[in-house]
Parts: sequence; structure tokens; C-alpha cells
Amino acid sequence: MKFCSSCGAGVSLRIPAGDNRERFVCTRCQTIHYQNPKIVAGSIPEWNGRILLCRRAIEPRYGLWTLPAGFMENGETTEQAAMRETWEEARARIEITGLYSVFSIPHISQVYMLFRGKLVDGAYEPGQESLECELFDAHQIPWEQLAFPVVKETLQRYFADKDKANGFPLQRGEIIKHPRRD
Amino acid sequence: MKFCSSCGAGVSLRIPAGDNRERFVCTRCQTIHYQNPKIVAGSIPEWNGRILLCRRAIEPRYGLWTLPAGFMENGETTEQAAMRETWEEARARIEITGLYSVFSIPHISQVYMLFRGKLVDGAYEPGQESLECELFDAHQIPWEQLAFPVVKETLQRYFADKDKANGFPLQRGEIIKHPRRD
Repeated sequence: MKFCSSCGAGVSLRIPAGDNRERFVCTRCQTIHYQNPKIVAGSIPEWNGRILLCRRAIEPRYGLWTLPAGFMENGETTEQAAMRETWEEARARIEITGLYSVFSIPHISQVYMLFRGKLVDGAYEPGQESLECELFDAHQIPWEQLAFPVVKETLQRYFADKDKANGFPLQRGEIIKHPRRD
Repeated sequence: MKFCSSCGAGVSLRIPAGDNRERFVCTRCQTIHYQNPKIVAGSIPEWNGRILLCRRAIEPRYGLWTLPAGFMENGETTEQAAMRETWEEARARIEITGLYSVFSIPHISQVYMLFRGKLVDGAYEPGQESLECELFDAHQIPWEQLAFPVVKETLQRYFADKDKANGFPLQRGEIIKHPRRD
């Protein structure tokens, strides 16, 4: 950020009065431009015990597999965002059965919220951002070809919970920056 | 938003190629300025069965009672944000015991995430943004003096769950805009 989005003047990094961290503040109109984490909402779409994954047709991680998920938009709920992303990326309609995982990724200021969902009619096909979509059993998941650590972590916990008696308790966690990806 | 924060030129509202909703796009450098919901993270701090509330020393809702909560910052986890806000507003240290409620408030593009927490040592005092802080039993809660609908909804569900056998299952929901507050 270099310019004030309200008046177009330059901004400078400084700690506003009563605050305790640096913000971009307009040098002319004094508007404080806060920056906050973004929510990535998505789903774990299930059909007869198998999970629907999408192979990415976009960067980053082109060609790798992921759960349908994307940035939540203004004016929607987290559930609506998860259903919208599932439709956009996999042309699948889901009924949400619960919030499964909430993972913070502080080094990129994102919070993933992934909901369990059941496909409504079993139909799916790749949306604009997917090369292909496919249903996988636990032993078929392309574990070495998953796009993001948060997806791997969520799927590992999901399939571990699937065989337990107490359902799917909410999973929380933090994804740490991987040194090799510096 | 009137000006591009990257180059200072004017922005216009239009639907970028490959997108399906209007964004602010720079008329010179073509940067797309996405706007997304913010997370409000906070806690339901408990001490011997009572809950810690803060009376707001700031607008909006000056003088009304609320749970300690505030905007999550870049670079932190949701749990860290909840603990930080509890410290800033109530000078209380908590140990988080679970995520209790996730409420979307689409008309103001906020998502509340409130964690259950236990006070570590029972100590608290008003922080800079609070007039006073106090522990309340269910029947002492100032129900008609709560600052926000999401706080009332969360506390009502919390005290209902408190008397049940199955613990505190995650609460999800949506807070609808109140007509009288248009």
C-alpha cells in the first residue's frame, strides 16, 4: 500500500494514537487503513463415503488436487461461501452437515474454514478453475499430489475420525510456514 | 474506495475478466482491489461458573456490555486473537477450551468466532476500551444492556448448553440485520 484509497495522497506506516501496532495512515486525510486476515471457506464433499477433490486449473499449485475452497466474499455467510465455492469449482451442490476444521495460517494471514457436506445428487464436473474433479476413497487420495498443507492436514484428520465412534469433532490448528517453501 | 492504493490513480467498479462480481479496479495499473469479510475473534471467559463481561468505553454501543472481542490482526491465529482481545479489554489471561460459536453477520461482512476460555488466575480489570469488567451468573447477565445481538445469541446458547450433558457443541448461525437499526 502506497496511496490512500480515500483521497489519493501518500500513506506512511505509523502507530496511530491509542493503537499498538503500525498501520498505513494517510499523510493528508489521516484515514487509517487496517489490513486483516481473509477467510478461505470450502467443503469436504462426501458421496457414499468418498470425498470429492478438484485438480487445480490455476496457479498457485496448478495441476495439484484440493478441496473446493476460496475467499469468502462480502455479504455472504461462511456456509454460503463454502457452498458457492463447491459449485464454482466442482459444479456440485452440497448440504452442509457441520463445520469440520478451522485452521489459521498466520504467515499468509488466512483462516481456512472447511465444512463437511453431502452431495445432494452425486453430480459434479470441473468448474472454470478445475482441470478435473473426482471422488476418492481414503486409500485412493493422491496424498503426494495435494495442493496445500491445510488440505492434507484436514483430510488426514477427517479419515481418522471417520472410523471413530464420536463423529467428527471440530478440528482446530495452525499451519506453520514450511522452510523449504521460503 | 476512490483511489488505487498501489499507484494513486482513480478506481472504477467493474467485473474483471473471469470474475462474476463487481470489484474496484484501477483505471491505470489495472490492480483489482478485493474486499473481504473480517473476523471478530473473542472469548467467553469463565471463572467458577461465572462469565466475564466488559462494559464498553468506546463507540459503537458505549456503556453497554459485551464479551471481549475484536478484529483479528494479520500474522496471528484465531486463538491468539481471542486471547489478545481478552487481555486488551479485560486484562484477563485465559486458557482456551474450545471454539464455541461461529456467527456470520453478512450485512456488515463480519464473522464472529468466540472461544470458550477459563481465566488462568481469576484476575481481571478494565482495559483501555472498557469502563468496567465483571463476572456474571446466568441470572445476573444484563440481558437488556448487551451491546450486540451476536453476544446475546451466544450467551443464551451458552447458558442453555451449560445445563446439558453433551458439553458445548459448536454453535453456528447468522445474525440478520435488525429493521429498527436501519
